[in-house]
Amino acid sequence: MKRAQIFRLEHYLMRLMELKIRGAAYATSDALADAVGVSGSRVRQDMMALQAVGKPHSGYSVDELEIRIRDALDLYRPKGMAIVGCGNLGHALANAGIWERAGFTVRAAFDVDPAKVGQSLVGVTIRHLDELPGALADEPCVAACLTVPTEVAQTVANLLVDAGVKGIWNFASVDVKAPMHVVIENQRLEFGLMTLSYLLKLHRPPKTPPSGG
Amino acid sequence: MKRAQIFRLEHYLMRLMELKIRGAAYATSDALADAVGVSGSRVRQDMMALQAVGKPHSGYSVDELEIRIRDALDLYRPKGMAIVGCGNLGHALANAGIWERAGFTVRAAFDVDPAKVGQSLVGVTIRHLDELPGALADEPCVAACLTVPTEVAQTVANLLVDAGVKGIWNFASVDVKAPMHVVIENQRLEFGLMTLSYLLKLHRPPKTPPSGG
Repeated sequence: MKRAQIFRLEHYLMRLMELKIRGAAYATSDALADAVGVSGSRVRQDMMALQAVGKPHSGYSVDELEIRIRDALDLYRPKGMAIVGCGNLGHALANAGIWERAGFTVRAAFDVDPAKVGQSLVGVTIRHLDELPGALADEPCVAACLTVPTEVAQTVANLLVDAGVKGIWNFASVDVKAPMHVVIENQRLEFGLMTLSYLLKLHRPPKTPPSGG
Repeated sequence: MKRAQIFRLEHYLMRLMELKIRGAAYATSDALADAVGVSGSRVRQDMMALQAVGKPHSGYSVDELEIRIRDALDLYRPKGMAIVGCGNLGHALANAGIWERAGFTVRAAFDVDPAKVGQSLVGVTIRHLDELPGALADEPCVAACLTVPTEVAQTVANLLVDAGVKGIWNFASVDVKAPMHVVIENQRLEFGLMTLSYLLKLHRPPKTPPSGG
C-alpha cells in the first residue's frame, strides 16, 4: 500500500469506530467516502483490495471491515515500543492511551537527564541512554518513539538502529536517515496545523464575492 | 479541497522543502508523486488546481510551487493561537517550533492548575481557564490548541466556542462537537502509530512464501 491508501484506511477505521459507538452495524461506501473526502468508487476499490464484500443497500459490515483494516495495518500483532526522550513530549505520548489500539506496549524508556533516570513512566523505569543497547536486547522493542531534541535526533536514531530496532516514530522536525531495513515514520505535527489553517480560511466570511471555482 | 487533497498538498510541500535543502530549483511530477504515493497524473491534476505550470523535462519551480501551496493552505496569513491545557503535551507543542511555518503565533495559554497559572510558556503568561473569555477578547486568537484531559475536552471546547474561537486543534482522543462555523481538526496520533505498524509488517521477513498479491 502507498501512503495515500494507508491514510484512507486509517480514516475509514476512525469512521467505523464512530459508527460503532452510534450502534450501526453497516457502513455505506458513501459514509466511508465522506470520512476521507474521496469518491465512492475509490472506496469500493479499497474494499476490493481488502476483500470486503458489501451488501446491496446496507453496505459493509462494520465489525468485519474493522477486522480487515486492523489486520491490513497489522494492529493485532503485539509489538514492543521504547520511548527515547522522556521530556514533555515523551511523557505526553506515553500517557496518551494510543498504544494498545495499535498493538503496541511501551516496554522501555530512556533519557540522559539524571533527574529522570530511575523514575517510572507508564510503569516502566526510565534508564540512561547509555544502557540502550543492552536494555533493548533484554526487552524486545521492535520500534522506538524518538522524542529527543532535534539536534541529537540522528545520533540517537543511529544508536537505535545499532540496537536492532526495526522502526522509528520520529517526532523531531528533521528527517532522520536509517538503513533500508529500518522504517521511519515522521510525525509531522505541522500537517495538522496546516490543515487547520486551510479550514479556517474556508470558513472565513469572504471579503470579495466567491469565485465560481 | 477535500481532506485527501489537503493531505497531498502537505506532502508535496514537505518534499519541496527537502528539494530546497538539496539545492534543487525544479520538482518533477514523479518526485512529487513519490512523496505521497499517488500517480503522476494525480499530481498534474493537483498542479492544475493550483494553477502551477511546469516546464517540459525539468518540472515545476520549487519556489513558485511552495508559494502556491502555502497560499492555498493560507499559511501566510498571521493567526493567533491559544494553548488550552499546559500539561506535558501543551508544553511540548508550544515549544515544538511548528507555529511560525503555518502562520500561527502562540498569544495566550490557559490551565486550571494553580502551580502553572502565572508561569511563562513560550513568553506568554499562563492564565487560569476562568479568565479565558475576557483574555481571548484582549488577545485575538482565531484558534486554540486543545490539550486538556479527555474528560473535560468537550466542556473546554464549549468555552472556546463561546469566547469566539473559530478553530480548534483537538488532541483529546474524543471527537469534540462545535457549531458549524467553528472548524475542528482532530489530531489523531494513533494514525502515525498505525502507519508505523503497517510499515513494520511490510519490512518483516515473511515466515511463509509471499503471496502473488
